[in-house]
Amino acid sequence: MNLSGAVSFIQSHQTFYLAAHQSPDGDTLGSCLALRAALLLMGKEATVVCPDPAPKNLSFLEGVDTVTDTDGIEPPKEAVIYVDCADHKRTGALQSILESAPYQFCIDHHGTNPRESRDGDWVEEVGATGELILRLLEALHVPITHGIATALYTAIATDTGNFSYSNTSADSFFAAAKLMAYDINLPELNRILFREMPLAKAKLIAYVLGEMELSTDGRLNIAAISQTVMESFHATKEDCEGLIDDMRDVDTVEAACILKESDGCVRVSMRSKRSCDVAAVAKQFGGGGHLRAAGCTLYLPLDEAKRVMRDALTEALA
Amino acid sequence: MNLSGAVSFIQSHQTFYLAAHQSPDGDTLGSCLALRAALLLMGKEATVVCPDPAPKNLSFLEGVDTVTDTDGIEPPKEAVIYVDCADHKRTGALQSILESAPYQFCIDHHGTNPRESRDGDWVEEVGATGELILRLLEALHVPITHGIATALYTAIATDTGNFSYSNTSADSFFAAAKLMAYDINLPELNRILFREMPLAKAKLIAYVLGEMELSTDGRLNIAAISQTVMESFHATKEDCEGLIDDMRDVDTVEAACILKESDGCVRVSMRSKRSCDVAAVAKQFGGGGHLRAAGCTLYLPLDEAKRVMRDALTEALA
Repeated sequence: MNLSGAVSFIQSHQTFYLAAHQSPDGDTLGSCLALRAALLLMGKEATVVCPDPAPKNLSFLEGVDTVTDTDGIEPPKEAVIYVDCADHKRTGALQSILESAPYQFCIDHHGTNPRESRDGDWVEEVGATGELILRLLEALHVPITHGIATALYTAIATDTGNFSYSNTSADSFFAAAKLMAYDINLPELNRILFREMPLAKAKLIAYVLGEMELSTDGRLNIAAISQTVMESFHATKEDCEGLIDDMRDVDTVEAACILKESDGCVRVSMRSKRSCDVAAVAKQFGGGGHLRAAGCTLYLPLDEAKRVMRDALTEALA
Repeated sequence: MNLSGAVSFIQSHQTFYLAAHQSPDGDTLGSCLALRAALLLMGKEATVVCPDPAPKNLSFLEGVDTVTDTDGIEPPKEAVIYVDCADHKRTGALQSILESAPYQFCIDHHGTNPRESRDGDWVEEVGATGELILRLLEALHVPITHGIATALYTAIATDTGNFSYSNTSADSFFAAAKLMAYDINLPELNRILFREMPLAKAKLIAYVLGEMELSTDGRLNIAAISQTVMESFHATKEDCEGLIDDMRDVDTVEAACILKESDGCVRVSMRSKRSCDVAAVAKQFGGGGHLRAAGCTLYLPLDEAKRVMRDALTEALA
C-alpha cells in the first residue's frame, strides 16, 4: 500500500476525519491541515480531530481553529485517515471513536508503524509525514495554496529540526524548494517555529547556563533544577525542552546531564556528542534510551542524585 | 557577464588566486575552497588567499590549512577570482597585491557590488555565493566530491542563516537538495556551524538573559554588559554575537537593546520585530542601520547610557 493506495482511498470517499496524534506537533497538525484544505478544494468534507489542543506556537496554521477534540465529537460517518500517528493508540482519547469508522487509512513516516489500518497504510521512512502529503496532493492534482504550502513547510521544517536531524534527506530539501514557490514567509516562520520563547524559558536558560558545573577537563557538564527554582520562574515542563542541548553545545563538553526535581523523584536527562554511551549509564539506574540521548529516574534528594550521576558519568568518560 | 563568462575565464587560464574577503565567513571560505578543489581536479593550479585567519568553527573545511595570508604571498602570476567580495577593498591587506594580477574576475551575490573587475563580474543576488559556485561546477562538468559538497553546503547554510533569512530562495533549497547526494553529515555540520559555543559565550548568554530588564508591558527588553563582566567571563566581541537576537526572542518583546561598555564609550545594538523603527532611534544618537536592526555609540557611563536608551525606546514604542 503506497501513494496510489492513498489516492484511491481519497477518491473513493466523500467525508473524512483526519486524525492527528496526541501532544500534537508541527508535522501531524501541518500535514492534517494541509490535507484538509486540499480535500475541501476537491469538494469533499474533512475535519481534523486531535485529542489535545494545538501548541500556542502553531496557532498561525490556517484552519487550526477548526480542529476538534473529544468534546461533542460525532462518530465518524465514513472515512478516517490517521496522519503521522505511529499507531492508532497515538490518537489517545479519540481511539475508540475513530476505530468505529467504516473506512480507515494511515499515512505516516514512522518505520515502527504496525500497519494496522483496515483499508491500508502508506508508511515511508522519510523526514516528515508532510513530505508524503505533498506527494499526495501532487498526485491528486490539487492546487497548492499559500496556506497549504505554509502548513507543509511547517510539518517538514519542525520534524527535521530545521533540516538538521539525520532523517533529513535530499527529498526534504526538494519539498521545501517546491513549497517556496507559494510565498512562504521564511523569516517570520523560523522565528515562530524555532526561536520565540516565553520569559520563563529565557530565565530557565539563564539559570541552567549560569549554574551548570563542568568537570573532567570540561568534558562533563551537569546541572540541577529544583522545584523551587521552577516555581520561582513560573516555568512548565515544556520550558525545560532543549536545555540539555544548550548544555551539550559548550565546545569542550562530551556528555551533558540535567536533573529535574519532580514530586518525590528526580528526572535525569543525558546527552553525549561522539563517544560516551549514555544509554549504558541510564541502564545502571533502571532507565534507558539511545547511545547519545538517554534518561532515568532517581528516588533521591536532588543534591545526592546529582552526586550519583556525576560519579557514574565521570566513570563512563574515563 | 554571467555564468558563461565565468566558464570561459576559467577555461582560458591555468593558475589562479581565489580571494576570500576579510573577516572570512562560511560563504567566502566554503565557496573558495570548493572552487579550489574543482580547479585542482581540472589539472589547474589554485590557491585560496585571505587577509584574515579562518574562524575556528570552519577549521573542518577540506583544504582550509592551505589558505594563504599576506605572509610571504607571491604576486599573482596569472588570474585572480574575487569570491563573495562585495568589492575589491574587502580583500583588505591583500588588495594591492591582488590588483596587480594580469587577469581578474569576480563571482559574488551582493547587489551593491560595483562590478569593477578587469575581465568581468558575475554578480547575482542569490542567497549565497556558494549557489553560484555550484552552478559553475555543473557547467564545467567537474565531479562533485564529498569535500566540495560539504564546503558548498556550508557556504549556503551559513549565509542563509540555515535557510531562515529573507535571501533564502527555492534555488537555495534546490542546491542543498543536490548536495545531499554526496553524503553530507547534516547533524554534525549543523552542530558545528550553528550550535557549538565556547564556555565564555554560554556564561554571557546566562548573564544577559538573567539580567535583562523588560518594561512597557514586556515590549521593551534592555540589557547592559560592563567591561568588568566581559573580563570576568574571558569573553570576546565574537561571544556577544547573537545575544540581542536571544533577547528579542522573548515572546512579548517588540524591541530589544543591548549596551556594551567598550574603552571610553558604550556600543548600542537594537533589534525590533514588527513595528518599532530602531533606525530612527539610532539616528537620534548619530547612529544608523535598518528598520529592524540598528546601532549607535554613546559617550556616557554605562548606567546613564542605559537610562537614555530606555527613554528613547519607550517613546518609540508609545
